[in-house]
Amino acid sequence: MKPPAKTIPSDIEIAQQAEKKPITEIAEKIGLSEDDLELYGKYKAKLSSDVWNRIKTRQDGRLVLVTAISPTPAGEGKSTVTVGLGQALNKIGKQAVVALREPSLGPSMGIKGGAAGGGYSQVLPMEDINLHFTGDFHAITSAHNAISAVIDNHIHRENELNIDPRRIVWKRVLDLNDRALRHIVVGLGGKAHGMPREDGFDITVASELMAILCLARDLEDLKERIGRVVVAYRFNGSPVTVSDLGVEGAATLLLKNAIQPNLVQTLENTPAFVHGGPFANIAHGCNSLTATRHALKLSEYTVTEAGFGVDLGAEKFIHIKSRSGNLKPDVAVIVATVRALKMHGGAPKEELTRPHLQALRQGMGNLERHLETMKNFGLAHVVAINRFPTDTEEELNFLRHWCQERGVSVALTEVWEKGGAGGEALAREVVRLAESGRSRLRPLYDPEQPVRAKIAAIAQKVYGADGVDYTPEAEKQIDEFEANGWGDLPICMAKTQYSLSDNPRLLGRPEKFRIQVRELRPSIGAGFLVALTGNMLTMPGLPKKPAALGMDVDAEGRVYGLF
Amino acid sequence: MKPPAKTIPSDIEIAQQAEKKPITEIAEKIGLSEDDLELYGKYKAKLSSDVWNRIKTRQDGRLVLVTAISPTPAGEGKSTVTVGLGQALNKIGKQAVVALREPSLGPSMGIKGGAAGGGYSQVLPMEDINLHFTGDFHAITSAHNAISAVIDNHIHRENELNIDPRRIVWKRVLDLNDRALRHIVVGLGGKAHGMPREDGFDITVASELMAILCLARDLEDLKERIGRVVVAYRFNGSPVTVSDLGVEGAATLLLKNAIQPNLVQTLENTPAFVHGGPFANIAHGCNSLTATRHALKLSEYTVTEAGFGVDLGAEKFIHIKSRSGNLKPDVAVIVATVRALKMHGGAPKEELTRPHLQALRQGMGNLERHLETMKNFGLAHVVAINRFPTDTEEELNFLRHWCQERGVSVALTEVWEKGGAGGEALAREVVRLAESGRSRLRPLYDPEQPVRAKIAAIAQKVYGADGVDYTPEAEKQIDEFEANGWGDLPICMAKTQYSLSDNPRLLGRPEKFRIQVRELRPSIGAGFLVALTGNMLTMPGLPKKPAALGMDVDAEGRVYGLF
Repeated sequence: MKPPAKTIPSDIEIAQQAEKKPITEIAEKIGLSEDDLELYGKYKAKLSSDVWNRIKTRQDGRLVLVTAISPTPAGEGKSTVTVGLGQALNKIGKQAVVALREPSLGPSMGIKGGAAGGGYSQVLPMEDINLHFTGDFHAITSAHNAISAVIDNHIHRENELNIDPRRIVWKRVLDLNDRALRHIVVGLGGKAHGMPREDGFDITVASELMAILCLARDLEDLKERIGRVVVAYRFNGSPVTVSDLGVEGAATLLLKNAIQPNLVQTLENTPAFVHGGPFANIAHGCNSLTATRHALKLSEYTVTEAGFGVDLGAEKFIHIKSRSGNLKPDVAVIVATVRALKMHGGAPKEELTRPHLQALRQGMGNLERHLETMKNFGLAHVVAINRFPTDTEEELNFLRHWCQERGVSVALTEVWEKGGAGGEALAREVVRLAESGRSRLRPLYDPEQPVRAKIAAIAQKVYGADGVDYTPEAEKQIDEFEANGWGDLPICMAKTQYSLSDNPRLLGRPEKFRIQVRELRPSIGAGFLVALTGNMLTMPGLPKKPAALGMDVDAEGRVYGLF
Repeated sequence: MKPPAKTIPSDIEIAQQAEKKPITEIAEKIGLSEDDLELYGKYKAKLSSDVWNRIKTRQDGRLVLVTAISPTPAGEGKSTVTVGLGQALNKIGKQAVVALREPSLGPSMGIKGGAAGGGYSQVLPMEDINLHFTGDFHAITSAHNAISAVIDNHIHRENELNIDPRRIVWKRVLDLNDRALRHIVVGLGGKAHGMPREDGFDITVASELMAILCLARDLEDLKERIGRVVVAYRFNGSPVTVSDLGVEGAATLLLKNAIQPNLVQTLENTPAFVHGGPFANIAHGCNSLTATRHALKLSEYTVTEAGFGVDLGAEKFIHIKSRSGNLKPDVAVIVATVRALKMHGGAPKEELTRPHLQALRQGMGNLERHLETMKNFGLAHVVAINRFPTDTEEELNFLRHWCQERGVSVALTEVWEKGGAGGEALAREVVRLAESGRSRLRPLYDPEQPVRAKIAAIAQKVYGADGVDYTPEAEKQIDEFEANGWGDLPICMAKTQYSLSDNPRLLGRPEKFRIQVRELRPSIGAGFLVALTGNMLTMPGLPKKPAALGMDVDAEGRVYGLF
């Protein structure tokens, strides 16, 4: 995310020095009055629930989807490019907004690094956005754990639903990195204190409620989806849902405000929707549908982001989020960096800041594969080279020429260092492609296909795999899920983001590989089946020196050590 | 809280029909501009941190402490009287504000009944106040559990502090009723998932951070107090604090906004501070000191409430909160109801709505004892008879005459049914007593006294006990605590609220009884030692039919079943 800077101050310094405008002024830019807002202090607001009724019949603006090559552990600056592109579009005369995910508190306490862009392309107020913000994640935590409490209360009482305590699949959640809560036993201490059983906590962003909040069109849809969530199985094997427990109304009530999009601004006062943040492996990894839909009605251009690379984020954006919301991206931006491509070409992590043209050349296969996928999707696209200070001219030229030779649009961006001014070339290319009307979105599978056919389509057409293998457990689950009537749902692949394959060490463009699906999980409320290709950690741990130990606030309220 | 009404609509109906004024208008009444507020929607705000610096040199207004006889399980309407009295003071021409605790979400999901007053004496917007409000409790949950995660991470790593995993006294918290989390084992699953140990969750309001937030004068004090919290003991028995772990800065950062008082309004548009909500048994049970201090600077009269009866709430208000904040109540209101006094006189719970003068007469001892305590404290006081529809004229007259014969001020209030208009007699009496300058606050012990002497002072002078017995464990703890240098702290008694004794079945005015202290707990950050006289449940459970099952929200956002 953050290239080693010489003269540029740290993200938090830039953010603290920024001239924020009152959020009411930002709202005016997209035609909203103070009455349309629920203010959260002077620089944050939720859109009031009345706004949608007024704007829903308007024509949508253009939708720009920002995605990336397969990322490296350092991150390629996708959020930064998203913010910078939004700023740049405004600079070239387009009324643009950005739509991003909300960062999760847990990781902020663990490893330094927020998710609000970087350098001169950040969303503000970054301190608030990275802490409690407007309370959306807290609301999800409450609603999720309220369901848990009702489940345990149910089995503590007469257990009328015949819930098998060994098969309660609804874990609890906290928005923290806390490995000691991954595997726990609850209900100890005797008869008055519940039924003993194995349980565990996930981080809040892994909650199915997070995915649901981000896919629901409105409160009614939210409640129906929550009602469909499978929380457990009976002794006879049949699923138990939230609506069987009768708690979907209370859970929806707790999320009543959380579903409304949050409005903030970028460093250059571009309106920014920052709302929702589901995991990009066991969930679909995009900001909320409500935010994107509002943004489309309120602006000429909406620049939004999907988690990880094209193979995960863009694929899910198209097959899951776009289907839920009837979205049609006009153009996709594929963020690539010289250093990540060098890593895909075999350069060791420690040497990424050194020139290494040979590794760069060898790493191009990764970009190539993602470009093919974009073509398959029928999406007009442009490669955004996110420049880092250590990139050489030779490397940048190579990358640019590589694209040009293949007829692929390409633009250099320096939005981290220069803000919107560093993204004007990209913005112009985005506008050219969007206005060309060239995109014809073609999903790569139909939800009505059998589960195995859908998984195979993703594996072959997106990852370039030769085929898919299933563990006996996964085979059994697919049969069960189809028997339960869940076969028509889209697939949410939980796969490592570092490789096109399911092996994080196979960088570049792996070939002659197969994908192994080990397990499936039903996210019936979110509306997809999760296919796990490996062990996905849904509760992170803290590092040896947690970032929290460096955080502070002084008597005047000044914040230190957040980044 | 809610007498059986014939013609009066339900609390939520009254609240939803109310004409709320924008919170900016409410703030104007106490001399605050929009710039002094951090808005949370149109009807809630936090006071900006700049306000205090501007007002701190002003003279304080009058402080009215609302307390009660020993309550019955149905509640005596103390919050309702507090709100109604605030409204009534405004009606008779005094500029008054109220200061109340924030309700906890967990119990709202469990048993019907909020904590925002009732009838025509409520604080608004009651739906928000009873759900997420301004996120204070969520912030406490996050900060508390962040400390927990750092503790478990510490013992998972090299455990440089030599923390004994069997003696980690910092449990985790959630703002829910969830009995299955009372006793748990964490850190299971093997080496990568932490160190196995026994643990448990309390409800968020039981967190020492809640008590600290409510006693801290400012951010600096907050951080120092958090640093002093004892979270565990080393293998050698010495205490480990939050500052030993180095996480007090991060925890304070997470509470940076939570410490600022929340401003809302009553049904009659009286400004209301609703802020903080510590338990009234293992903590001191009052709204935040920051709210009370701001209120005193911004109004002629501040009406505030302390949890439970005089023996707990008022005693702790005086010995703990007043000492921390240098507060001096001008007058105390003792809320009494005919039905509760009848219960203290032996009437069975099922018959409280029937006339029973004999039981009423026998129950007066409870009020008598609390009146003696008020005299001991040197506080001018008035008995507020909170009228219920089932009270007979004969019963009300008896109660009134009983007071008059003894020279005790008394006033009938009907604020539940009539709002401020039903509390004017009480308001006039409160003003008369406050302006008489009669109160001379006398604490009943000095913090420098030995621990046992302080406990004895409370037991004898407030409860009327003959003396105090200690379990061997408690004896040992007192010696240890004094050796640790904690002997100078005030005592926070954790005792049943239903009796003056430690036996909840001894109603009325028990005599010839002793108090048994079973255990002590250090709340060094909050600044008191908790003396437990029984098993205090710090994580409630859900009833067989949780209130959550009746809650709902419709497509237009209308709320159902909250009360």
